[in-house]
Amino acid sequence: MNAPDSPIALAQLMETLGSRAKTASAQIARAPAAIKNRALLNLAALLRQNVPALQAANQRDLERAGAAGLAGPLLDRLKLDAKTLETVALGCEQLAAMADVIGQIIGLKEQPSGIRVGQMRVPIGVFGMIYESRPNVTIEAASLAIKSGNACILRGGSEAIESNKALAALVQQALTDAGLPADAVQLVPTTDREAVGLLITMPQYVDVIIPRGGKGLIERISRDAKVPVIKHLDGNCHVYVDDPCDIAMAVTVADNAKTQKYSPCNATEGLLVARGVAAEFLPQIGAIYAAKGVEMRCDEAAAKILRAQPAINSVASIVPATEQDWSEEYLAPVISIKVVAGLDEAIAHINQYSSHHTDAILTRDHMHAQRFLREVDSASVMVNASTRFADGFEYGLGAEIGISTDKFHARGPVGIEGLTSLKYVVLGQGEVRT
Amino acid sequence: MNAPDSPIALAQLMETLGSRAKTASAQIARAPAAIKNRALLNLAALLRQNVPALQAANQRDLERAGAAGLAGPLLDRLKLDAKTLETVALGCEQLAAMADVIGQIIGLKEQPSGIRVGQMRVPIGVFGMIYESRPNVTIEAASLAIKSGNACILRGGSEAIESNKALAALVQQALTDAGLPADAVQLVPTTDREAVGLLITMPQYVDVIIPRGGKGLIERISRDAKVPVIKHLDGNCHVYVDDPCDIAMAVTVADNAKTQKYSPCNATEGLLVARGVAAEFLPQIGAIYAAKGVEMRCDEAAAKILRAQPAINSVASIVPATEQDWSEEYLAPVISIKVVAGLDEAIAHINQYSSHHTDAILTRDHMHAQRFLREVDSASVMVNASTRFADGFEYGLGAEIGISTDKFHARGPVGIEGLTSLKYVVLGQGEVRT
Repeated sequence: MNAPDSPIALAQLMETLGSRAKTASAQIARAPAAIKNRALLNLAALLRQNVPALQAANQRDLERAGAAGLAGPLLDRLKLDAKTLETVALGCEQLAAMADVIGQIIGLKEQPSGIRVGQMRVPIGVFGMIYESRPNVTIEAASLAIKSGNACILRGGSEAIESNKALAALVQQALTDAGLPADAVQLVPTTDREAVGLLITMPQYVDVIIPRGGKGLIERISRDAKVPVIKHLDGNCHVYVDDPCDIAMAVTVADNAKTQKYSPCNATEGLLVARGVAAEFLPQIGAIYAAKGVEMRCDEAAAKILRAQPAINSVASIVPATEQDWSEEYLAPVISIKVVAGLDEAIAHINQYSSHHTDAILTRDHMHAQRFLREVDSASVMVNASTRFADGFEYGLGAEIGISTDKFHARGPVGIEGLTSLKYVVLGQGEVRT
Repeated sequence: MNAPDSPIALAQLMETLGSRAKTASAQIARAPAAIKNRALLNLAALLRQNVPALQAANQRDLERAGAAGLAGPLLDRLKLDAKTLETVALGCEQLAAMADVIGQIIGLKEQPSGIRVGQMRVPIGVFGMIYESRPNVTIEAASLAIKSGNACILRGGSEAIESNKALAALVQQALTDAGLPADAVQLVPTTDREAVGLLITMPQYVDVIIPRGGKGLIERISRDAKVPVIKHLDGNCHVYVDDPCDIAMAVTVADNAKTQKYSPCNATEGLLVARGVAAEFLPQIGAIYAAKGVEMRCDEAAAKILRAQPAINSVASIVPATEQDWSEEYLAPVISIKVVAGLDEAIAHINQYSSHHTDAILTRDHMHAQRFLREVDSASVMVNASTRFADGFEYGLGAEIGISTDKFHARGPVGIEGLTSLKYVVLGQGEVRT
């Protein structure tokens, strides 16, 4: 298929992709685990065999992007080096090694009528994935689709089109070689922006849309989509240092949660400190943040304690926090800091300002831990652990297609199970309703 | 609150309902099981104590509806008699007796990093329920909200407004007497049609909409809603009589699935018969349908067999099926009948024409049963049981708020768990990401 050159041609192209995906989805949904695993192993082998060809395609994207003036970090994300390719190949092999959850029946119980009722895990059908620069997402999404028995339509960034076409061709070969329909994984072969609008409004073909990208993109897609969207908006994550807590542990965790990496969505952006431990805790964490060049946007009480420490005050950037700071996702060496009266104020602050992604309490109090877990309304709630753990691999899901900040269907890191649905199965021996 | 008399007043009213529901949802979400059960038992007692007052309110609805020319079956649905009230009171007591699922943690496992990761079942938040005539739905929805720790905003039919106001007042008293916020269950106190449009477009307050009513209503709500909708569209259910099968059992089940009650969504509308058993099976079921006055809309092969039986042909209405019949939800003494080559054609027909509600195979073949369960893409798939079993009570869910024909979030009968979400909980001892 070539890029269409008119709105009608584009509509026909998307209609064709949708209809083929729908047909393929019924075939891959009933495929035995061994066949799907074969396709994944084929794909790993093909990726390794085609490193030079893939890099050549990627080079064309990089040159076009460079010529268009794309900046350093964005070029980095676009780059498909041998290490990245080996990582995604290994990912395919890991998925192949995982147990298959499709067809699994849970909770089968006999009811008073004699029928046995349970739930069978089945694929959702067809998902549409919309993502930006990183071309390795093409393989991550394709391999999760294959393992979960779904068909998918992939719409990558226009800057990565050559890389994505080369990768998608290998996926289709891997599928065909395993006896599965190539249409189970299709790449939108055009960079026409209107394709996204069509992809998200085909409920007859596409069951769910998974966008990965900036908040603006995801809000636009959520607003216009005619099918459910697995949303990942921003990650304004918090660490609350409770009274009582182990101060040495709190310093280690609050340091890791903010500074281990600044760009991930699960990095902490807001630090709340119980009044009773603020005088002991803040100077210690403040010294670390100051040494690492982390700007601290503080409420009055926190600023007072930090500024009273000459060693910190002399090197650190201690700035008064504005109302906006409590809602901000910095993704940078910046953290907001607030002293709170205790657990109640911490929970209220988090439920008001957090983006419901990941929030942690550091505490020694069992009742406080229980209340925090129960009452903080976020996709991941943690006790005595770094928010940086909010990740499909760290949670043992094997792989993730994204992190959902939604409450509906999938919440938190979305692995294979988030791409499935549970249908009821009823096993009888001729029972009738009376 | 009184009915508003301008669009601005209505918008303010809905804003107030939404904001109060949101506040109440945080309170009821953390309420202990014993308090929620106390509210349910209070409600059961109040319903029994207030039978005359409730019937007086209902009488005003009935008189207004009668004067407006409402027909017999619709008046029946509106009627709140002592038996209906006792049934909903018992329903509240049954819910109170059920184990609480809120706060339950599942799948807690230690990961290589040392953190333990599991999922906690928590309320969704606020649901909006939109329904028609039957006022007992007010109590069913309210009691499910209380047990599941959600707040709800109820929008009943305008013809039942007096009954619903009287019932909702008792719910709020039951909540208050238990120490829970009355705002956890609010009834939209106006019959203004614009209220629905506002209720389904308040994502800041309402997390999910549950419509119960005709297909037109549900399609309209799904199209316009800005929040997820738990959809129950039509129930075009099938029974497939396989080769080989126990013919006597098949006759009993196919009879029950069609004729035990004609109006429920889980009644069978389409009968598929494998060619190999058609000559034996069809005359037997045809005689029963004929005796019960069930019109049979047949493909050529089925019509030929049935018409060859003078005892059936002389009394039955055997009509040629049109393409439209395969998609029809009759909710009446009418059934479509088609002879198919075997399992493959049956599955293909069902996946094409069924409304993905409930479909059953009657068979002796284990492999056929397994394939049917796996490959039929419906909310409930059954082996050797009547489709009439597709129901929350029969499935052991205790109560249901509706039946979802969607694949996303909840599928099939939706009980307490369908009104909850699973968030990740992480229990650590100071672990950090490396």
